[in-house]
Amino acid sequence: MSHNTFGHLFRVTTFGESHGVALGCVVDGCPPGLPLTVAEIQAELDRRKPGQSRFTTQRREPDAVKILSGVFGDDRTEGRQLTTGTPIALVIENTDQRSKDYSEIRDSYRPGHADFTYEAKYGIRDYRGGGRSSARETAARVAAGAIARKVIPGITIRAALVQMGPHAIDRARWDWEEVARNPFFCPDPEAAKLYETYLDGIRRDGSSIGAVIEVVAEGVPPGLGAPLYGKLDADLAAAMMSINAVKGVEIGDGFASAALRGEDNADEMRAGNDGPAFLANHAGGILGGLSTGQPIVCRFAVKPTSSILTPRRTVTREGRDAEIVTKGRHDPCVGIRAVPVAEAMMACVLADHYLRHRGQVG
Amino acid sequence: MSHNTFGHLFRVTTFGESHGVALGCVVDGCPPGLPLTVAEIQAELDRRKPGQSRFTTQRREPDAVKILSGVFGDDRTEGRQLTTGTPIALVIENTDQRSKDYSEIRDSYRPGHADFTYEAKYGIRDYRGGGRSSARETAARVAAGAIARKVIPGITIRAALVQMGPHAIDRARWDWEEVARNPFFCPDPEAAKLYETYLDGIRRDGSSIGAVIEVVAEGVPPGLGAPLYGKLDADLAAAMMSINAVKGVEIGDGFASAALRGEDNADEMRAGNDGPAFLANHAGGILGGLSTGQPIVCRFAVKPTSSILTPRRTVTREGRDAEIVTKGRHDPCVGIRAVPVAEAMMACVLADHYLRHRGQVG
Amino acid sequence: MSHNTFGHLFRVTTFGESHGVALGCVVDGCPPGLPLTVAEIQAELDRRKPGQSRFTTQRREPDAVKILSGVFGDDRTEGRQLTTGTPIALVIENTDQRSKDYSEIRDSYRPGHADFTYEAKYGIRDYRGGGRSSARETAARVAAGAIARKVIPGITIRAALVQMGPHAIDRARWDWEEVARNPFFCPDPEAAKLYETYLDGIRRDGSSIGAVIEVVAEGVPPGLGAPLYGKLDADLAAAMMSINAVKGVEIGDGFASAALRGEDNADEMRAGNDGPAFLANHAGGILGGLSTGQPIVCRFAVKPTSSILTPRRTVTREGRDAEIVTKGRHDPCVGIRAVPVAEAMMACVLADHYLRHRGQVG
Amino acid sequence: MSHNTFGHLFRVTTFGESHGVALGCVVDGCPPGLPLTVAEIQAELDRRKPGQSRFTTQRREPDAVKILSGVFGDDRTEGRQLTTGTPIALVIENTDQRSKDYSEIRDSYRPGHADFTYEAKYGIRDYRGGGRSSARETAARVAAGAIARKVIPGITIRAALVQMGPHAIDRARWDWEEVARNPFFCPDPEAAKLYETYLDGIRRDGSSIGAVIEVVAEGVPPGLGAPLYGKLDADLAAAMMSINAVKGVEIGDGFASAALRGEDNADEMRAGNDGPAFLANHAGGILGGLSTGQPIVCRFAVKPTSSILTPRRTVTREGRDAEIVTKGRHDPCVGIRAVPVAEAMMACVLADHYLRHRGQVG
Repeated sequence: MSHNTFGHLFRVTTFGESHGVALGCVVDGCPPGLPLTVAEIQAELDRRKPGQSRFTTQRREPDAVKILSGVFGDDRTEGRQLTTGTPIALVIENTDQRSKDYSEIRDSYRPGHADFTYEAKYGIRDYRGGGRSSARETAARVAAGAIARKVIPGITIRAALVQMGPHAIDRARWDWEEVARNPFFCPDPEAAKLYETYLDGIRRDGSSIGAVIEVVAEGVPPGLGAPLYGKLDADLAAAMMSINAVKGVEIGDGFASAALRGEDNADEMRAGNDGPAFLANHAGGILGGLSTGQPIVCRFAVKPTSSILTPRRTVTREGRDAEIVTKGRHDPCVGIRAVPVAEAMMACVLADHYLRHRGQVG
Repeated sequence: MSHNTFGHLFRVTTFGESHGVALGCVVDGCPPGLPLTVAEIQAELDRRKPGQSRFTTQRREPDAVKILSGVFGDDRTEGRQLTTGTPIALVIENTDQRSKDYSEIRDSYRPGHADFTYEAKYGIRDYRGGGRSSARETAARVAAGAIARKVIPGITIRAALVQMGPHAIDRARWDWEEVARNPFFCPDPEAAKLYETYLDGIRRDGSSIGAVIEVVAEGVPPGLGAPLYGKLDADLAAAMMSINAVKGVEIGDGFASAALRGEDNADEMRAGNDGPAFLANHAGGILGGLSTGQPIVCRFAVKPTSSILTPRRTVTREGRDAEIVTKGRHDPCVGIRAVPVAEAMMACVLADHYLRHRGQVG
Repeated sequence: MSHNTFGHLFRVTTFGESHGVALGCVVDGCPPGLPLTVAEIQAELDRRKPGQSRFTTQRREPDAVKILSGVFGDDRTEGRQLTTGTPIALVIENTDQRSKDYSEIRDSYRPGHADFTYEAKYGIRDYRGGGRSSARETAARVAAGAIARKVIPGITIRAALVQMGPHAIDRARWDWEEVARNPFFCPDPEAAKLYETYLDGIRRDGSSIGAVIEVVAEGVPPGLGAPLYGKLDADLAAAMMSINAVKGVEIGDGFASAALRGEDNADEMRAGNDGPAFLANHAGGILGGLSTGQPIVCRFAVKPTSSILTPRRTVTREGRDAEIVTKGRHDPCVGIRAVPVAEAMMACVLADHYLRHRGQVG
Repeated sequence: MSHNTFGHLFRVTTFGESHGVALGCVVDGCPPGLPLTVAEIQAELDRRKPGQSRFTTQRREPDAVKILSGVFGDDRTEGRQLTTGTPIALVIENTDQRSKDYSEIRDSYRPGHADFTYEAKYGIRDYRGGGRSSARETAARVAAGAIARKVIPGITIRAALVQMGPHAIDRARWDWEEVARNPFFCPDPEAAKLYETYLDGIRRDGSSIGAVIEVVAEGVPPGLGAPLYGKLDADLAAAMMSINAVKGVEIGDGFASAALRGEDNADEMRAGNDGPAFLANHAGGILGGLSTGQPIVCRFAVKPTSSILTPRRTVTREGRDAEIVTKGRHDPCVGIRAVPVAEAMMACVLADHYLRHRGQVG
């Protein structure tokens, strides 16, 4: 029915519903001997955590993670907990399961949500907060991503919001330091200011808006990827498209490359100290499904949050026409919190391929 | 190292290099009892076959497919060959392995191609015609797709070229009948005329150009997909991104949805005879990774062919600066022949999920 | 490194170490709509639980299981918790992590245990109680097996201990009812009496002894299995061999069939009401890797517990000769508690193939 | 439905029926840069080839293998063909598809064969020579095994027939050199003489007989295996059980270990030059699912060929009682030709785990 495992060598299996007892994941295939602390995982989770500004959902969840297995330390490890090569189970309890009236989403399908499709597939659904289809599951991805980062030394993964609604950032002003300074993970301080006003307006309207996220990995050695059906770009496309509300993914020039001529698109090379030095990166760091050694550049589009206050036409489970308003505490721009999730997915994909690459294996 | 199998229940394993002995695939997991003839597979291959117009490579390959296993017929089947549920092996011999001088691409890396990355990964590469990284492999996908189509009765899959270079079609003129009438698989007859002139110019310049392909599946029942890591859109994104030269994939409104407000994006519903009737299809037929029952709409961008006549700066295997011109018989717009490949990949993904859905299984 | 997932459509991922925080599993691919309670899982766990007689380890663990996800109930389900088709996470906390001196097994390799091999593979090991290699992990299997049983209605799975040390039961006295009446899961009451005296002697000697377990599944429809590399018997062989201390597996007549002539081995058939009626079951219910509809009969041999009080020659991590005595609370015949584990593994394998069969899928 | 791929990192997908056009396999995940010739694969196939003595089927098949992909050579490789890391497709055409009357096995189920179960599963079967369930498929395994051997340098894999019917060899006379000197792959020259007379008698009676095969791998480094569900012994059990007619598998002392006491079973160690030196090998070289560095010893039982001349009771497809005699060219002891197949399966399993081990990956 469902398929909740991601990755081939570095395998992440997630579980949990929005308003269930707990959510979490099992990370299998992590190499032994890596130092790993709860604090490191928690730090990543805290970046994604709801309720940190007025621009994300006001649900209050500490998202406190526990490690149940797969690490061990004693005096030989100088008290540090190291991974042991066995599966690492992580659990995050749901604490803010606010008792509320779910009768409306219980009986009607929210437009743009997975209510109808889950019902069509399973015949039953945990409708509380969207159940399994809730973006809350991405907390487990972020936790797994924190482990994945430890697997890929020397690789830096950073993501940023580069467009909100119709407003793209000015790439000339790109400053990675800015990303941590505003509630939008935006690398352009001017755009961040604009987004503040813009999103306040959206929020006041009870509406929501889409966004574009860019995630970049630097320090990736050439040759990562597993052609032909484990290509690095194909795995990234699946990874990003699997994030809630994502409707498009591109690598490098992406859709813009359709308008390019051959001589403008194919990145030329000159001899470098350390292999070929590319003179451009239209390819976004991937050729033939394999990394070139250049930065890997991936972008994806997030649709506007479907939970809005405007009344919408829909049908009930019984097949009658209805109107629905999705009250509750929602992100007016769900793309914002997708930024740390994007980094986590990039980290998981790269960890998987890094292990292949390191081992020269299948 | 490599990973050449696609799909979970309907599994396709492809093999073969551009100028090797043969290429082909093994299709495993195909249900028994389906009538299957060589002619049906050949018909699909003929649509992708090179050398059918001056707008595709002049390499002459009959691409004649043979079925080695997995079908059986006798008088009880009235002489028809039926699938038996065992693996179906298909082989296409390479006949036009024109003996030529490969010394240039043997020693230098063609910009935009996988030459450098394959060398980085494997330390050895079959450089003849691109070896395994050649788009010639997509013949095996098209053959597998012909089988996949038999698995999904009632589902119609059609693809079309909707943009060449900067020139998008006019959607108001969309006519599926037109697709078979021009050498571009273009549904807009006016655009097709324009493309003819335009691509002649590109070809005369020794250049190449990108394109956008749209593939649509109609008749898909609601509930297909396997959340959270086998979402229908994630699998489609991987499938399309795995096609040679693809740099971006989108579902429904795709990147345009980033600019939409919630009330404009989420497709409303009214009671229909047969489940909810959607009033729009911004979602491209997929919500929460599951099909809605609406047409599934997927688009992808293909970069311009990297093999062009303009001299390009590059480096040699030994790390010296060089210039390279890729002579030979190349597609000026590799996006054209991606159209039947897109249909095949859509068919394979849907066959995989259709089998899950039919069996209500994992 | 490690691979902790079992099954293809009904997938069980286990985690946890003997003396870690918790152990458990994630069951993915379980069909929706099945009633599932903690009590049902707990009942199976209680059969495997340590400390229930003087013949099993005196470690005291309540083995209380919690369901973290994948079930849901409301008034529409009449208050029952039903599976939702999403992953079911189960957790069992370790409570009896008796603080003890592990210095001996920390520094020396216990003969017959995985101490040396885990160290060779991972370079680090959680030596407390055997860590991940401990039979304690089988609690997670039993929990998963309780869910698997719900997936296969009409199939009865029962296991029994049929040999302890050199003492085989008398099959003429086989009575399934007896299995629950003695602490050995023995179907022969006379043998059970003998085992009591015999195992007391073994225990007093500080020694241990091997055993043979037989597991039988009745009500299995014909045609379950996925040739050629997902044969039912091959999957069962892997499942049983993966249980701690198992050294051999056989189906039907097993090794005895080597001495048979063709006419004595191949089970003849006569027309039955409901398909062929077999006149014997030398095949143990499996032909060509597929179930015949007869009872599936599988036996496996369990070696004696390697933790014994007799001093044994070994080496230390530093490579010096040493002697070791494994104190602690050990099962004198680890085969006994393998009985419910065998049932669980049979249930998981059959659930996997039942789903394939039901869906006629790959 | 079916599942025709074996292995995780070193993946073998086989295809083909006994009397179809061809059979073969695709080997994916083979490392690049290994010299590989048709002659090397052919040499292994020739050991398994039918018709080499009066003790195996008289079907005449050259079993000539072709390599379709995945190897490449030029002057840089000094003319040698090297693996390229891409999938290696191997094909063996069926030439001796003797046109014969199959009406009997078409309409009746041969006892002991997969006729009934394939029909139950698929509803259709290629009955000619057993179709996909024929032992002819093992030719593809042997071909894949020849490649697997190249992946595991320093590991020697040898198998032998150690029991025919009730007659076990005398292990004191074990001489690996003898295996190539008699038509039984028997390491005991005296037993081989006995088998000659014995099997002539069986053959004259139109009967058949079972056998036990032992396969031994030497030079395996410690730490191979992937606990808990990719244990080396579990994978070997599945591999051997997947061979036609196998009914039991054991590792090391196997079933005999059930009768052992702890102090007799667990292999003691002393300090060696190169890690622990084991003082015995009851474990058959595997502890906790991981290799110890000692020889890996695996045995399996093969039932007697089900195709015999004695009339047997059965039923027809239409459900009527019938008698059947299986004429044709059959192996009186199918265990004989299982010897090279056992080596191939051991090689494939070890190649898979060797790659994991080498890469310290998942």
